[in-house]
Amino acid sequence: MPKRENISMSVIRRLPRYYRFLNQLKRDGVTRISSTELSGKLGLTASQIRQDLNCFGGFGQQGYGYIVEQLAAEIGHILGVEHNYRTVLFGAGNLGRAIAAHMNFEQLGFELIGIFDDAPQKIGTVIRGMEVLNTACFENFCKEKKPEMAVLCIPRTAVEATVDRLYPLGIHNYWNFSHYDINMKYPNAVVENVHLNDSLLTLCYCISNAPEAQKPQKVQI
Amino acid sequence: MPKRENISMSVIRRLPRYYRFLNQLKRDGVTRISSTELSGKLGLTASQIRQDLNCFGGFGQQGYGYIVEQLAAEIGHILGVEHNYRTVLFGAGNLGRAIAAHMNFEQLGFELIGIFDDAPQKIGTVIRGMEVLNTACFENFCKEKKPEMAVLCIPRTAVEATVDRLYPLGIHNYWNFSHYDINMKYPNAVVENVHLNDSLLTLCYCISNAPEAQKPQKVQI
Repeated sequence: MPKRENISMSVIRRLPRYYRFLNQLKRDGVTRISSTELSGKLGLTASQIRQDLNCFGGFGQQGYGYIVEQLAAEIGHILGVEHNYRTVLFGAGNLGRAIAAHMNFEQLGFELIGIFDDAPQKIGTVIRGMEVLNTACFENFCKEKKPEMAVLCIPRTAVEATVDRLYPLGIHNYWNFSHYDINMKYPNAVVENVHLNDSLLTLCYCISNAPEAQKPQKVQI
Repeated sequence: MPKRENISMSVIRRLPRYYRFLNQLKRDGVTRISSTELSGKLGLTASQIRQDLNCFGGFGQQGYGYIVEQLAAEIGHILGVEHNYRTVLFGAGNLGRAIAAHMNFEQLGFELIGIFDDAPQKIGTVIRGMEVLNTACFENFCKEKKPEMAVLCIPRTAVEATVDRLYPLGIHNYWNFSHYDINMKYPNAVVENVHLNDSLLTLCYCISNAPEAQKPQKVQI
């Protein structure tokens, strides 16, 4: 049985990368890989990879390496991709539509079962073959479909009221694209934030503070 | 002059959060705030905040706190938001359209000056008042407009060839939504990755491994 205690977020955040990469190797027909080869391709040290995987019990064999398909399956299992958590998406604006259309939820542990908005011009439109439903009908939808996760693509100002409504309905897991900090009010909610503004500002810092050699140079054509 | 050496990425990644929050306070009419109040609202310790800001020279006054408008401006300056880096976006699919329409580039240090795609059905369509241009015309566009940053909303398989084309044109800064690792081939490129798949898989892990008390519960209505 894999050990799973006190695993740091940095290890956890590397797992999807391993998973993605191993699946790519599988598609490329690679059946076995050493931690040294894996490390070269991932830009991590071999010992880092061994340490990370050891957190979950370790999978390789000294001198033999990892069986790609098996390791991909094990990491998928650790991530929980087989759960297909029933997922609803709130906010059918530009971002919500893109997320609904773009993401392969079913390969990543989730099943998108409903898209909600309260703007009359959006209700009834179709995204990914799914009709956008009226947020007002959410309680009824819940009784029947029992969603477990909500993707929040709504404005920051609307998030608190939405979570106040969803949390008591048993939805405690959120993929949050707004800057509202759900855990301040609901410390037990499981929240993964995607802060696109912060990411862009971080890039702005890194460009502005890059060593001179890396600074944007004059265009040479 | 602010000191700016060896600042860790964790400190850098907290700056946008400070910036965002201080601007919110400014909009709310708050003029002064202590590091203790700031910490309560940000979920960090006061000493953490003081330490972070000290990396850049420190701004508060003992017993007086921070002047909100001044600190917001200073952090904005550290981030480099006044640069308005000329930005192009590649890929006018669902995600690219959403990013172009949704992001306030100009408040975050960038100016979106062109959107490119090579699909005939996308070229000429309008996003955010801007016509999608043919990727084939990019070199000419570059001569005139001299872009400094590229947002990549193209499939993973197309990224390498795109960066091979952009890098020699002087575009060394990337906001990358694909899973292609630009730094493996271009170690000096300044890259900020947004890995939405990894984020969703991390959430899947966190839900699957949440303490029992937090696990999705039966819907109660």
